[in-house]
Amino acid sequence: MNEKMKYRKYWGLAVFLAATAVAVPALAEEANLKDTVVQLAYSVDTFYFLMTGALVMWMAAGFTMLEAGLVRSKNTVEILTKNVALYAIACITYMLVGYNIMYGDSINTIIPGLSFLLGADHTVEEVLKSNGEIYYSSLADFFFQVVFVATAMSIVSGAVAERMKLWAFLAFAVVMTGFIYPVQGFWKWGGGFLDALGFLDFAGSGVVHLCGASAAIAGVLLLGARKGKYVGGRIKAIPGANLPIATLGTLILWLGWFGFNGGSELKISDVTEANAVAMVFVNTNTAAAGGLVAALMLSRAWFGKADLTMALNGALAGLVAITAEPLTPTPLVATLVGAIGGLLVVTAIICIDKAKIDDPVGAISVHGVCGIWGLLAAAFTNPEGSLIAQLTGIVVIFAWVFGTSLVTWFIIKAVMGIRVSEEEEMEGVDVAECGLAAYPEFTKE
Amino acid sequence: MNEKMKYRKYWGLAVFLAATAVAVPALAEEANLKDTVVQLAYSVDTFYFLMTGALVMWMAAGFTMLEAGLVRSKNTVEILTKNVALYAIACITYMLVGYNIMYGDSINTIIPGLSFLLGADHTVEEVLKSNGEIYYSSLADFFFQVVFVATAMSIVSGAVAERMKLWAFLAFAVVMTGFIYPVQGFWKWGGGFLDALGFLDFAGSGVVHLCGASAAIAGVLLLGARKGKYVGGRIKAIPGANLPIATLGTLILWLGWFGFNGGSELKISDVTEANAVAMVFVNTNTAAAGGLVAALMLSRAWFGKADLTMALNGALAGLVAITAEPLTPTPLVATLVGAIGGLLVVTAIICIDKAKIDDPVGAISVHGVCGIWGLLAAAFTNPEGSLIAQLTGIVVIFAWVFGTSLVTWFIIKAVMGIRVSEEEEMEGVDVAECGLAAYPEFTKE
Amino acid sequence: MNEKMKYRKYWGLAVFLAATAVAVPALAEEANLKDTVVQLAYSVDTFYFLMTGALVMWMAAGFTMLEAGLVRSKNTVEILTKNVALYAIACITYMLVGYNIMYGDSINTIIPGLSFLLGADHTVEEVLKSNGEIYYSSLADFFFQVVFVATAMSIVSGAVAERMKLWAFLAFAVVMTGFIYPVQGFWKWGGGFLDALGFLDFAGSGVVHLCGASAAIAGVLLLGARKGKYVGGRIKAIPGANLPIATLGTLILWLGWFGFNGGSELKISDVTEANAVAMVFVNTNTAAAGGLVAALMLSRAWFGKADLTMALNGALAGLVAITAEPLTPTPLVATLVGAIGGLLVVTAIICIDKAKIDDPVGAISVHGVCGIWGLLAAAFTNPEGSLIAQLTGIVVIFAWVFGTSLVTWFIIKAVMGIRVSEEEEMEGVDVAECGLAAYPEFTKE
Repeated sequence: MNEKMKYRKYWGLAVFLAATAVAVPALAEEANLKDTVVQLAYSVDTFYFLMTGALVMWMAAGFTMLEAGLVRSKNTVEILTKNVALYAIACITYMLVGYNIMYGDSINTIIPGLSFLLGADHTVEEVLKSNGEIYYSSLADFFFQVVFVATAMSIVSGAVAERMKLWAFLAFAVVMTGFIYPVQGFWKWGGGFLDALGFLDFAGSGVVHLCGASAAIAGVLLLGARKGKYVGGRIKAIPGANLPIATLGTLILWLGWFGFNGGSELKISDVTEANAVAMVFVNTNTAAAGGLVAALMLSRAWFGKADLTMALNGALAGLVAITAEPLTPTPLVATLVGAIGGLLVVTAIICIDKAKIDDPVGAISVHGVCGIWGLLAAAFTNPEGSLIAQLTGIVVIFAWVFGTSLVTWFIIKAVMGIRVSEEEEMEGVDVAECGLAAYPEFTKE
Repeated sequence: MNEKMKYRKYWGLAVFLAATAVAVPALAEEANLKDTVVQLAYSVDTFYFLMTGALVMWMAAGFTMLEAGLVRSKNTVEILTKNVALYAIACITYMLVGYNIMYGDSINTIIPGLSFLLGADHTVEEVLKSNGEIYYSSLADFFFQVVFVATAMSIVSGAVAERMKLWAFLAFAVVMTGFIYPVQGFWKWGGGFLDALGFLDFAGSGVVHLCGASAAIAGVLLLGARKGKYVGGRIKAIPGANLPIATLGTLILWLGWFGFNGGSELKISDVTEANAVAMVFVNTNTAAAGGLVAALMLSRAWFGKADLTMALNGALAGLVAITAEPLTPTPLVATLVGAIGGLLVVTAIICIDKAKIDDPVGAISVHGVCGIWGLLAAAFTNPEGSLIAQLTGIVVIFAWVFGTSLVTWFIIKAVMGIRVSEEEEMEGVDVAECGLAAYPEFTKE
Repeated sequence: MNEKMKYRKYWGLAVFLAATAVAVPALAEEANLKDTVVQLAYSVDTFYFLMTGALVMWMAAGFTMLEAGLVRSKNTVEILTKNVALYAIACITYMLVGYNIMYGDSINTIIPGLSFLLGADHTVEEVLKSNGEIYYSSLADFFFQVVFVATAMSIVSGAVAERMKLWAFLAFAVVMTGFIYPVQGFWKWGGGFLDALGFLDFAGSGVVHLCGASAAIAGVLLLGARKGKYVGGRIKAIPGANLPIATLGTLILWLGWFGFNGGSELKISDVTEANAVAMVFVNTNTAAAGGLVAALMLSRAWFGKADLTMALNGALAGLVAITAEPLTPTPLVATLVGAIGGLLVVTAIICIDKAKIDDPVGAISVHGVCGIWGLLAAAFTNPEGSLIAQLTGIVVIFAWVFGTSLVTWFIIKAVMGIRVSEEEEMEGVDVAECGLAAYPEFTKE
């Protein structure tokens, strides 16, 4: 080999090194950039959970205003107290034990595990190594879930209003949020047997709304009707004291439901997921609209008047009904699912009242009847739906929640009583339980 | 060629292949990464639309509370019913036909097209191939737009409060949200002739607020004043029944306006756009502040009292005024635009009342007068503004909406009547139309 | 060199160029992609600021409803007016001068600088060259900060309710939001000496809440108690007129606090930051829950009744207490920090009332006592905390705000008087100051 050729050999090596020197940092920096993008996507999904969770938390205010507006003024402070206290209790019990029952390690697909408090969040390394499987903060997930359990419990407070003892109710709230709700939640969303069966429940027509209604039915049956509601075979209408705040409560719930259903897509950080979340927002909105219009027109047809409370319940009925499957229907179908919910809720409120089951705010009709309707509708609007799986889920959730609730209410009744005295009921539970009047200057005895 | 040289030839090829083997995957993976980033940006912009849209939906609650607080208790249930029902109707008609009129294929820049229901959302492929032109979900866009049309219709309900028939109003809502609003919306935001003229209207001082006010004027003129409002040449003040909820409604609107204006930037996913959205938030807020302070001081100067309702209307006036151009002014200029709005609204409310045009909540002053003011101001605060284009837009929007509304109201009047009977008005429309009292325990006859 | 070898030489060059041609665009496009990602992260952080800022703005509605619900109906319009006007004033003064005092160039770590209006936002070039240091819009930062100063001022309005002149209060608001608050804010968050000392205050238990309470104490001391509150050695309870809206106000504050604390992490765009924001949300929520439950149980134990107003103040106490350090405690510890806040607030309200300091809504107990508790707790829950630094911060903030406020109130008193006349107080400040009644149909004299 002459010098030139030797040189040429090095030349080849130099070319290789030079090319590599250009290309390798490109790869290395690209690895960094890829990690940055993965982290950024994680932050977007986490932010999405936190914002939608905040909207669901806001639903606590919705239920509070709705129920406070639909009861009489003498029972308003107590229903306010129940609502804020149940939210606080739900947050604590679910953190202590409920979240782990629902989403922790389980014994099998029927029996969940038991552990306490929240674990640490994902590390950066776990996220980067997970190949996209870990894509949002587990604490953000907890935040999103904890506001759901409060929603389920909020449903109960309306149905037992104006006659149940405050502390009996709060004792039930502990059991409901720490045990009854998480177990059936585990069966569907925690990977239990209902999920394996193909039971569909996108955001909780069953797990949240039917669950809350089932607990409410158990309470109402044990509690009995309000004094003066059903006298001598006649049904007396007991009007709510403040319809503007009941309307406000409904609109708060409508807004919060964008978080409730929209967040339940669980991811937003690519085109397909972002489109899905957008579809859920549109369908949630239009189902509520359909429910409101249908209920308003039906009440006009039946009663000759445009009953505002029926319209509000119609909107809520539409929201509950679309919750089981807000993604697969077209907006027109979603409107119809909501509208049927609106027709059902008016009918159910009348029927349940005729059956002398006293539900002051219509919670059983809205969340129970329309929860079932939504679950059934999902069998038709989602191509993967199975009517048998849906029926199984309905029966299982109702049986579990109604049964355990009945036992729980029964024990509480035996220990401390669940109903206020007749004198307290006549005077109003506010003074008896809370020592305050909601509107001391507006209502004169 | 000897062996060595042959080998060297291959060596060169090997170097090339090796270098390419390093560089090509870098390019390939980079293409993937680029797609991931494009999708992530799409999800951020979609999320931004959905969140700002949710804030605008919340404005429905704002109008509902504002109007419910400013009417008398005997007419409260009906205004609540109108507000929730108009929102529901707007959502359905706009989905069925309005959105397509406004943003679908058009015949020319004056005549929009006609088609029904919503199309499918963008596919991943369309997004990736669009070179940045498709950057958010079309369903998220629909969601954002549909809450705007509800806002326009909400403006009407306040002006015709306390005397218009519920179902006449709802019939008008169908025409307004399905036809009248979308056509003029198409002229500006759908790429019609007003847009081509250089007419500026960032978020709808004209398309939404002047539009709503123009429909309201037509209704009010045909409807006449409330009984007892103008008697024997004297103007009787008719105070609202519940000022705390009117205040709440105003603050809800203030909050919702961050979505209304902030979302109308339509993009947030780079530095320039993010800065623009931030500027819009700051200017929207400070214009409302300027309007409130100016109206409060003027009412103090003129009436000797700090009139809360004027202050609230001042805040809304500032918000309406800045809506035509919340991006180009500095925050100080935005404050002044809002403050002038605040002065105008107090003056306008007094003048309109003196002209015996009965607008119970001041909607025409807030949305009409200050909508026009905002559109005119945009000619000065935006360097691209043209006073002639702005005046043209004002005249066109007013003429179209006022004209078509007058015809619509007239037909509705002929078919079913638009005004409740004198007895119903005295008794309150709540009992007559809805069969319910808003506050059954607070007000005794 | 023969032709072949010559050719081979070019071949080597060709290989180099070819490899480079493949690799260099990869690098160039990657630089573009990196810039795109940096810009996208900037937009995510900006969006996060704007959304959390909107939630804090919403707290203005929370304070307004809380205070309006806790005063008597005859003083309701005035407290509504004060609340909306102080928010507007805060937005204007802070834009004019306050923000620059707090975050602008300073003379030293004690004396801030003075400049006016807002500067331009960051350019794309500045962002890209900043190597990650500039990661969100400065206008979004202003928006987030401006709603904080309004919060501090909102605290004052409740404590001086039902007896202070409207315009005296608004004059104070100008000084407080334009000068008093920004100076102490500079000492901590603007890089002043309190920050250098190691004083910890994550989101403002001191800078916002103790600050507001200190100004309130000065006002209350100078103003004296309401007529009839302390007569003949007896303390008369003066119940609020509308507890549903007080409850609504509390729930609004609870929701807004996710923005208040959650936004104070100041960044969300990577895994560590996103996890931090999620932790702050969870801890904020659970501290409020702990405070509510503890206050409710203590009030039940002490008074025999479940006092709703104490429960509401307990939730707020928990929120104020966790604000100094919502990131480092576990959720269980956060619950305890909140619960102790709840116990403290009930105790403090009783003690302050016994000391005949008349604070109609308990603002001093909630924001002052629990602000101090939160700052002290941070010394234990944050490993970097120092009890001495915390005590120093508490003393400095209190001394500054109390001192300057007392001087300011004193000057205002001398110039225009701060207290309404005895007749006006008996009649209600609404008619005297605002010429309106909050509920003209509900309360009959």
